[in-house]
Amino acid sequence: MVKVKVYITLKSGVLDPQGKAIEGALHTMGVDNVGDIRVGKYMEFHIEPKADHSIDEQVTFMCNKLLSNPVIEDYRYDMEEVITT
Amino acid sequence: MVKVKVYITLKSGVLDPQGKAIEGALHTMGVDNVGDIRVGKYMEFHIEPKADHSIDEQVTFMCNKLLSNPVIEDYRYDMEEVITT
Repeated sequence: MVKVKVYITLKSGVLDPQGKAIEGALHTMGVDNVGDIRVGKYMEFHIEPKADHSIDEQVTFMCNKLLSNPVIEDYRYDMEEVITT
Repeated sequence: MVKVKVYITLKSGVLDPQGKAIEGALHTMGVDNVGDIRVGKYMEFHIEPKADHSIDEQVTFMCNKLLSNPVIEDYRYDMEEVITT
């Protein structure tokens, strides 16, 4: 079994209203040395390797078709083997 | 300047309806070897070190007071020095 961690972020140049709102709230709270806040999605899941597709192929398919919006979002992912005892 | 990456995830035991919805959609798309999907938030920002607070203190304050909901969410973060030329 493999644990996959996916990081989905807005492409640079895409306005991030959530990031701007957080920046404003932080300034109100007196935190004024923070900037360039970008908010994205973080997903974790387990995947059982299959013979007919590599995990890279499957994760790429999942990211492009469902988990991210390729028009405005980028994605990257990490994988780690899960030792089941 | 320091770049901070924050990962916010639901505490284990907290129901993740978004994760369940994604799992259902994946099964409909024929991806049936994926499970335990957990959806969270991923944030990046730059922070200018200040004399009166360490960056750890500031990020911890930000996470506890604004970026995450300590009742149902956990957070962790990474930091990397940004070399400005």
